[in-house]
Amino acid sequence: MALFDPVPGFRFSAVPAGLKADALDLGSIVADRPAVAAGVYTQNRLRAPPVDVAAERIGRGELRAVLVNSGNANAGTGAQGLTAALDTTSAFAQRLGISAELVAPVSTGVIGVPLSVDRIVGALDGLVAGLRPDAIEPFAQAILTTDQGPKVARRSLVVDGRQGSVLVIAKGAGMIHPQMATTLAFVVTDVPCRPDVLRRALTSATDLTFNRISVDGDTSTNDCIIALASSSDRHAPLDSGHPAAADFVQRLTEALDDVAIMVVADGEGAEHAVRIIVEEASTDAAAVQVAMTIATSNLVKTALHGGDPNWGRVLAAAGRSGVDFDPMLASIHIGPVSVYDRGTPMNRDQEAEASEVMRQPRYDIVVRLGHGAGRGWYWTCDLGHAYVRINADYRT
Amino acid sequence: MALFDPVPGFRFSAVPAGLKADALDLGSIVADRPAVAAGVYTQNRLRAPPVDVAAERIGRGELRAVLVNSGNANAGTGAQGLTAALDTTSAFAQRLGISAELVAPVSTGVIGVPLSVDRIVGALDGLVAGLRPDAIEPFAQAILTTDQGPKVARRSLVVDGRQGSVLVIAKGAGMIHPQMATTLAFVVTDVPCRPDVLRRALTSATDLTFNRISVDGDTSTNDCIIALASSSDRHAPLDSGHPAAADFVQRLTEALDDVAIMVVADGEGAEHAVRIIVEEASTDAAAVQVAMTIATSNLVKTALHGGDPNWGRVLAAAGRSGVDFDPMLASIHIGPVSVYDRGTPMNRDQEAEASEVMRQPRYDIVVRLGHGAGRGWYWTCDLGHAYVRINADYRT
Repeated sequence: MALFDPVPGFRFSAVPAGLKADALDLGSIVADRPAVAAGVYTQNRLRAPPVDVAAERIGRGELRAVLVNSGNANAGTGAQGLTAALDTTSAFAQRLGISAELVAPVSTGVIGVPLSVDRIVGALDGLVAGLRPDAIEPFAQAILTTDQGPKVARRSLVVDGRQGSVLVIAKGAGMIHPQMATTLAFVVTDVPCRPDVLRRALTSATDLTFNRISVDGDTSTNDCIIALASSSDRHAPLDSGHPAAADFVQRLTEALDDVAIMVVADGEGAEHAVRIIVEEASTDAAAVQVAMTIATSNLVKTALHGGDPNWGRVLAAAGRSGVDFDPMLASIHIGPVSVYDRGTPMNRDQEAEASEVMRQPRYDIVVRLGHGAGRGWYWTCDLGHAYVRINADYRT
Repeated sequence: MALFDPVPGFRFSAVPAGLKADALDLGSIVADRPAVAAGVYTQNRLRAPPVDVAAERIGRGELRAVLVNSGNANAGTGAQGLTAALDTTSAFAQRLGISAELVAPVSTGVIGVPLSVDRIVGALDGLVAGLRPDAIEPFAQAILTTDQGPKVARRSLVVDGRQGSVLVIAKGAGMIHPQMATTLAFVVTDVPCRPDVLRRALTSATDLTFNRISVDGDTSTNDCIIALASSSDRHAPLDSGHPAAADFVQRLTEALDDVAIMVVADGEGAEHAVRIIVEEASTDAAAVQVAMTIATSNLVKTALHGGDPNWGRVLAAAGRSGVDFDPMLASIHIGPVSVYDRGTPMNRDQEAEASEVMRQPRYDIVVRLGHGAGRGWYWTCDLGHAYVRINADYRT
């Protein structure tokens, strides 16, 4: 099954609404019948109004459509922003002949600027007219802000003898342009799911993927992942006791992982996507904590940019993670190369080999703490001049 | 009283020991008689052996001397590093005719490279010969690594009708060169103090000063602040009930604040030292938490570098701080200029005025949360190309 093949039960569309200059900036996914819905949302207190509306509607368990605009995050916009989210989804629902309660609004782009309801409403007829099962790629384009390209991943699985798909369409490259924010992901699947199964699968898969990446440690106002599972009168929805339930979680995790790594690799002028793996921690949670601290250290990230196998920075970041360990029991590998082994630093040959590994666009750094069986990881990217150029040199 | 005037009861010295090329790199402070000592130390698990030795010795409450080298942090050096700290302080103590238990070793510089005991011991005779009450400035030079210059501050106060001094000598400019680390500060005072008074004063003053600055969020392996209060047989030591005790804490806090701000201003090619003040939080602790999150946000720090009054980034960082607040009750000022007021963003005039404020080398950003009377602050600096150049472009 090819990446952009239709997912039965869903149609996609995208049009230019004039929020961005000469580009697709308004997209939609519409389910043929009410779909089981689940979502995970930013923990930021400055949560944008559309996220509030989407979370409330998804909380009821069913959706027919998402209406997504790029070019404006509708964040920090207060009561006016809430009205804009309600009005645009109402107008869209009306054209689809459904209840507005079944449409989730999603916005991404500049913070603190009023969203133009008129431009969006003026583009809705075209959006509805364009709905097609095979318009996945234009939709993936329409949700981008400063991404270098669309981020789409797909997995298939067999449930009750029938082939199903899990398709993930995402955007995100850090909060890369001044006041441009948000990572978004949309999951559509033609595997019917009970609401609790879809919700738990999404939470679990997110925890292992989008909650394990850091571009700059900043959490946006608009981050969300929305999952839609088509309903079917020919198949019973997946429940947690179904033999395929674990496989569904696995495939969803893989697809989210694919796009999450694409986000890191596309992060803020990054040249390297690096997975920080921590092993031999006392618990898995401790391992993730250490990995996250290393992944968000500016000193580590600049060393990744410089191709410098600076184990001291990695160990010093681990040392301030709040997790107890003895550096004399710890070891660090960059790719397959040992750079620090229980008190003994790398020799010159190892340093040269590690530098060679660090030229690659994607590699692992493995930190073993020597304390237990806990394991965790975090993806990060290098911090270089492009990050500063993108975030400081351009003015709003 | 001039900055570099002697502090009665203390002598200083500095020599080149060959750890750095052609520079003062070994310094000492020696008290004429056993001084009451207190210290605060890095929380990093990769704490360097000299910090372990110093903490143990200072824990007994008295010191006669500190022996400080720059050019090598003696960190990540294991048993060999411990031996080096013990051997160098023993050799120094022998020459002073005192117990090694009364000498605190302090090291700063490259991590993971064995400290040359021979070079330090070879320089000790010259170090002892050079001890003078007025050698404060050479000592302040000898402890620097990549700092642009010495960091010294001083306050005076009157205790029991007698004038006393609090002198602070510090180093630190972030972990600015690859594998170069550490912020250090030494406090000497001729105000005799009871050990518990000195300890509490140092902890309280540190919490309001060195614990409120962030250059890059990384904590070094060697950070420590050591305070020495001379003993006197003519004056009773300050106890907590003494009317001058609060004044002593205040003067110590001011002197530490002066040098802490010098560290931020000297941070990693920084052009701006910015104080993030958070008011109207539910508690002081919540205010500090919000200020710290804003101060360590790369998106905020790059905006400071670009002179961009990007209130959205400030508010978004506050939003992910873990502290509950309503953005619709919050306001933000850059210097005196309102840039966000309970949902209403700045207009074009305000934007221009705020940009003007951001050209200054030092200014405040005030965030009011509208939730209570809690107040806190954090100093930070901008993140620019110089940071990346210093930390990524140079190789170890």
